[in-house]
Order: sequence, then C-alpha cells, then structure tokens
Amino acid sequence: MTDNDAALAANLEFYRAFTAHDWLAMDRLWAKKHPVMCLHPGWTLLRGREAVMQSWRDILTGSEAPHVMCHDDEAFVNGDVAIVVCEEELRDGSLAATNLFVREEGNWRMMHHQASPIIARYADGRR
Amino acid sequence: MTDNDAALAANLEFYRAFTAHDWLAMDRLWAKKHPVMCLHPGWTLLRGREAVMQSWRDILTGSEAPHVMCHDDEAFVNGDVAIVVCEEELRDGSLAATNLFVREEGNWRMMHHQASPIIARYADGRR
Repeated sequence: MTDNDAALAANLEFYRAFTAHDWLAMDRLWAKKHPVMCLHPGWTLLRGREAVMQSWRDILTGSEAPHVMCHDDEAFVNGDVAIVVCEEELRDGSLAATNLFVREEGNWRMMHHQASPIIARYADGRR
Repeated sequence: MTDNDAALAANLEFYRAFTAHDWLAMDRLWAKKHPVMCLHPGWTLLRGREAVMQSWRDILTGSEAPHVMCHDDEAFVNGDVAIVVCEEELRDGSLAATNLFVREEGNWRMMHHQASPIIARYADGRR
C-alpha cells in the first residue's frame, strides 16, 4: 500500500467511525503524540486532544448523530504529514472537508479536521 | 527566526496581501512546485494553481474585495509542512481558517486555505 493509499484508508476509517458512531475507533484514529485540533462546521477552533475528543464523544453519542458519506477524496503526502481533501454528504447538505494526518509509529493519525458547508457550485462544472 | 515564526510570518503576509488587494504578492505567496488547492467560504474545492489563482484575482480585483484581519494565529511545523490556524475578522463576521504551507527553496509557500464562518461560540469561554 502506498503512503497515499494509506492516508486515504485512514480518511475512510474516520468516516466509517463517524457514521457508525464508533467512539472507540474515533478515539483510536486521533493522534496521541502530536497536537490535535478540530473545526466543526460553524464552531470556533477546538485545541487539544481533550477538547477535540469530548466534542466527538458529544457528537457521536448524541440523539442526532449524523450519517456522513465521503467522496471525491484526494490525498497529498509530504514527509510525515498527509493532507486529505474530500466532500461530505449528509442528509441535509454537502460539506467540504480538509483532514490532516500525521504519522505516528507507522500509522496515519488525525491531527486536524475542518468541515464547512458548500453553498454554491459552479454552473460551468468547475469544482 | 524559528520555523514556526517564519510560518506565522508567511501567514501574516497572506492576510496583508489579502487586505491590501495585492494580487502580485498573493501570487508570489502560493506554491509553484507543489499541488495547491483552496476552499473559499461556501465554495467547493478549487484544485490546481490556475483555478486557485484565478479565484484570488477575481476576489482581490472585485469591487467588493474584503478587508480581513487575522488573530489568534498558531503554527505547527512538521518537516516541510506548516499548519497555521487562525481566526479572520471581516466587517460582517468572523471566520475560522486553516492555512497550509509547504517549504519551497527555504520559503513557506501556501498550498491550501480553508475558511468557514463561525456561527457559535461557547458560552463558557472555550474556543
């Protein structure tokens, strides 16, 4: 498996854990030895593992935990950092996401996630 | 100057060029030897230097070119990648931003920018 493929696999695991409301898998996926942060749609930045994981616990165990499908995912690896961009499909709309992974003991672990609603698409098909 | 300070300086140069509507400086700031992409608020992902720089040209030369102040900026360097998170203050609201830089010939060059509106802040002061 190439570095890029491994980063895309980690990204898919994020969305699997998300949509399965699998809190333990989500916790396992986030980096433990690097600073982590997260920008949920509309929120201010969460800094640090404790605040980020608490937010995921709240989201995944809430009564309105969303189901999310990921598509158009693309990875860019540079050293021990992988940048994955993708779109997220939710029941009530689409979001654009940037997911950053860092290598920890040979595995890609999440260090940042930002998702924001897509309001407009180009009429000419650019995306 | 440390790597972190240099990344923060590149980030400030991004906002200086943005708010000064300095198209040439903006063009200079973006990476030339790495893939670049950009997620403007509400837009779908722009992929590739041509599409990204065209968007900046449109934004900076438009009659409603915004003025943006950056604050609460923090940088995380890992090898040849720098992740900078910050808030953007515009006349009509605040955005949260992730800016990614990559090292090119000793300089931090932008490879990705995502900004999304902040809708809620925590009542307890968490941010």
